[in-house]
Amino acid sequence: MSKNKEGMLIVLSGPSGSGKGTIIKSLLEQRKDTVLSISMTTRDPRFGEQEGVHYFFRTREEFEQTIANDGFLEYAEYNGNYYGTPIAPIQRWLYEGKNVILEIEVQGAEKVMDKREDLVSIFLAVPSMEELEHRLRGRGTETDEVIERRLAAAQQELTRVFRYQYVVLNDEVEQAVARINTIIDAENLRYSRMENTVLEVK
Amino acid sequence: MSKNKEGMLIVLSGPSGSGKGTIIKSLLEQRKDTVLSISMTTRDPRFGEQEGVHYFFRTREEFEQTIANDGFLEYAEYNGNYYGTPIAPIQRWLYEGKNVILEIEVQGAEKVMDKREDLVSIFLAVPSMEELEHRLRGRGTETDEVIERRLAAAQQELTRVFRYQYVVLNDEVEQAVARINTIIDAENLRYSRMENTVLEVK
Repeated sequence: MSKNKEGMLIVLSGPSGSGKGTIIKSLLEQRKDTVLSISMTTRDPRFGEQEGVHYFFRTREEFEQTIANDGFLEYAEYNGNYYGTPIAPIQRWLYEGKNVILEIEVQGAEKVMDKREDLVSIFLAVPSMEELEHRLRGRGTETDEVIERRLAAAQQELTRVFRYQYVVLNDEVEQAVARINTIIDAENLRYSRMENTVLEVK
Repeated sequence: MSKNKEGMLIVLSGPSGSGKGTIIKSLLEQRKDTVLSISMTTRDPRFGEQEGVHYFFRTREEFEQTIANDGFLEYAEYNGNYYGTPIAPIQRWLYEGKNVILEIEVQGAEKVMDKREDLVSIFLAVPSMEELEHRLRGRGTETDEVIERRLAAAQQELTRVFRYQYVVLNDEVEQAVARINTIIDAENLRYSRMENTVLEVK
């Protein structure tokens, strides 16, 4: 509505198996105003993964330099590799008026929420633990032990839902996407985002 | 989504001529979950006005008793008559799960926002001062002096827009109504409103 409106930073989190990836894919197909943040990692590219599309691939030294420069919204080390959310590309997109989605696990999301207040945070919930187990088993790629560990983590993650502004139930993908669309549209009507438009009236 | 969910209190304010009444009429036709708050007044009923529909008509003594009991969200005196927003019927509707809209001028809205934090506040803006003047003159019922006074008031009211959570531009009625629908739908996805639903998962 207004020109030069900054985009919004959206944190989408939720348990493993809550369907973050599927929902974001569908959301991005519907919204040309929204992009997915790209993580930086020190792990080697897998077959088909492209620099700047799936990840920014960097050396350990480069990654640690970015840490030293306070260049991450959050980062962590898993299995001997760093993974992080670099700030610079996000700032550029926001400035260009794009909304940026961070698809992030619950611990990382909290680090981001601690660091920035000007974001929209959404927790993606599953209808029930039974349904979550069903989905995790349906992937057919994980061992019982991994599934048990993920279910226990999900129980734990659910206790952190109070940190989020919005809760979207993923009972059905297109409905969940519609709910996130509604949230983004409403957030665009916030005073803080309408300020320029309103001032034009004067 | 959840049972026994409380309704939300919605404050809709904006300058005289911004179209509050028209928009609320259309919104209420679309949303059976939402009702309009009824004011209490000491003025006499006009032809066709019904008790409990257009106003609660009360004596001065009764009105002042309600003031003494802290029974108003806000009240004011105009032209020798009291007008106020009684809390009791609002509480009952909210408890029954209805959203309650307060259609209220800017000063009254601020009193309500000072008193309650658990509300959704929306400022209805007009595209331009020229458009507002056009609408006020279009009514054909007001003198030039009244119109001038309303325009000056609107300029002043616009400086208070920062007090509101949302700003809805009333460029076209059905679009403005759609925006308010979006806000209500998104607010229903707030963690504070989803809490019961989420806890069911555990």
